[in-house]
Amino acid sequence: MNERFLKACRREPTDCVPVWFMRQAGRYMAEYRAVRAKHSILEVCKTPELAAQVTLQPIDRFALDAAIIFADILLPLEPMGLRLTFEEGEGPVIHNPVRTKADVEALKVSDGSELSYVGDAIALARRALNGRVPLIGFAGAPFTLASYAIEGGASRNYIETKGLMYGEPAVWHRLMDKLARVVTAYLKSQIKAGAQAVQLFDSWVGCLSPDDYREYVQPHVRLIFEGLKNENVPLIHFGTGTATLLESMREAGGTVIGVDWRVPLDEARRRLGSDVAVQGNLDPVVLFAPVHEIERRVETILKQAGGAPGFIFNLGHGILPNTPVEHVQAAVDLVHKLSAR
Amino acid sequence: MNERFLKACRREPTDCVPVWFMRQAGRYMAEYRAVRAKHSILEVCKTPELAAQVTLQPIDRFALDAAIIFADILLPLEPMGLRLTFEEGEGPVIHNPVRTKADVEALKVSDGSELSYVGDAIALARRALNGRVPLIGFAGAPFTLASYAIEGGASRNYIETKGLMYGEPAVWHRLMDKLARVVTAYLKSQIKAGAQAVQLFDSWVGCLSPDDYREYVQPHVRLIFEGLKNENVPLIHFGTGTATLLESMREAGGTVIGVDWRVPLDEARRRLGSDVAVQGNLDPVVLFAPVHEIERRVETILKQAGGAPGFIFNLGHGILPNTPVEHVQAAVDLVHKLSAR
Repeated sequence: MNERFLKACRREPTDCVPVWFMRQAGRYMAEYRAVRAKHSILEVCKTPELAAQVTLQPIDRFALDAAIIFADILLPLEPMGLRLTFEEGEGPVIHNPVRTKADVEALKVSDGSELSYVGDAIALARRALNGRVPLIGFAGAPFTLASYAIEGGASRNYIETKGLMYGEPAVWHRLMDKLARVVTAYLKSQIKAGAQAVQLFDSWVGCLSPDDYREYVQPHVRLIFEGLKNENVPLIHFGTGTATLLESMREAGGTVIGVDWRVPLDEARRRLGSDVAVQGNLDPVVLFAPVHEIERRVETILKQAGGAPGFIFNLGHGILPNTPVEHVQAAVDLVHKLSAR
Repeated sequence: MNERFLKACRREPTDCVPVWFMRQAGRYMAEYRAVRAKHSILEVCKTPELAAQVTLQPIDRFALDAAIIFADILLPLEPMGLRLTFEEGEGPVIHNPVRTKADVEALKVSDGSELSYVGDAIALARRALNGRVPLIGFAGAPFTLASYAIEGGASRNYIETKGLMYGEPAVWHRLMDKLARVVTAYLKSQIKAGAQAVQLFDSWVGCLSPDDYREYVQPHVRLIFEGLKNENVPLIHFGTGTATLLESMREAGGTVIGVDWRVPLDEARRRLGSDVAVQGNLDPVVLFAPVHEIERRVETILKQAGGAPGFIFNLGHGILPNTPVEHVQAAVDLVHKLSAR
């Protein structure tokens, strides 16, 4: 097996820098659009054969060093009692958002059995990968899940989310605790099914101040990482806009910290210390630029990452829908070429 | 006149910390909604009597230490040749967005005479204020203006904006240079009309990496501040999500740097040094929380600001539409009470 990604997660030397991209299976690929023309996102997620098929699409096309199971971060909200749909062009919608103490009390803390289709997809994808590259599992982090559950969808200012947080802290902590327990069980089940690393996506946590992060989020994220500490796989902790949260996120846990393009990698490495690996951080919009510009930026990132072991090349957020496929290809190949020892 | 705000901008001691709020004249006030029920945003902006009236509304109601002229950051785009409207619930729309070299070449660099209605509003507002508090003028910064001009409205990922920046840097710099010259003339005309301080809003610049900021934005912002350096008024330089841009923004210019809630004020003061004042940084969503929670957070901010001269209390971004008026009142009074020497 190509061990580059797992070695880099463990801060062991590799022949070149490993690379994978968040949302590497997605709308920018014709193969993916062909599947989605016949099936909704939720159908693909809940049909292990389709989820595994889509997971492999970018691996068959690019020299990526890891696969990530195709799923959606919001899936665990369904067995908790929330009604989730994806509206064309609008993204996810939660039809019965969580707003009150009673809403939070009514949420079920499932054991993860309702999400067994994700485990099945992982098992199928592992078999199909046949050792080519490791397979990453993932889940949304409690804050990011809470923001969707409370707002009922994506948000700009997180007024309802912070409203609950600031106005009813006990209810907020109860919600976060339920989410943390669900996420822990879900990630454990993914590892049991064959995930060789897991990533916790706290995509929207960057809307918080450092004080708020430590008070309202960090204890719950810590619970997840403590619950996973006996699992023998790398644990990636990712967020965007986290420039003032980095140290607190590291304290919360994770053996790899993912950062976006707002935090230069030399600064990230310096602030995070030498006992975690770092993942990032190309702006996904750069993949729309001419290849010579992509090359210049890959070079800069590799330089800022500094050459020591413990670095995984990724984007700072997921690949955007209209990204040119040949630019994704170019970026992957450039990472390998420019970092080869 | 209440000199607290101007003194704090000059880092002189004051009896208590001055406070004003971005978008303090806005939809959360019944008086404002009454005017807007009869007039569009652009009508209010372009009718000096109405703009001055709305500017005074929060001053008549709260113990604020500064007024800010009612206007919109996108107004200077109109005389450049862009067609601007505000769609109900959608925000601003530019109907002929700038995408190509030819589009950029066609943009007029006006001398600001088409925007004389803003100067007239400033003169009227100064007269109506009658020395109660100073009046702040403002403009959008080149990056933030460019993002609207290129995207045609608000944006999530700035794909077109960064697309031009990364793909056609010469065209980008030409656009930014035109915007910087327009903004400089516009701010000069506001100062001439009576603005006693001006704020440059680079609201969306936090979507950039520090390298991109320095390469594609900083030279143009510097041009503006250099153009204003002989004007004898405080120059406030504001952005959101700027945790990794602070030092570069200070280098670009400004005698006061505005930060949002993601950057703790003690960190901002330490990183910015003692030769600029700092403005910020309450999360506007906190104004939806119970008053005891607002009090706790005002107290924390005052503590983090450290008590030395050169601090202006503000939000980290504009007041949100449904903010309870009595909470705005409470926040203003708490800042004065808790910081009184």
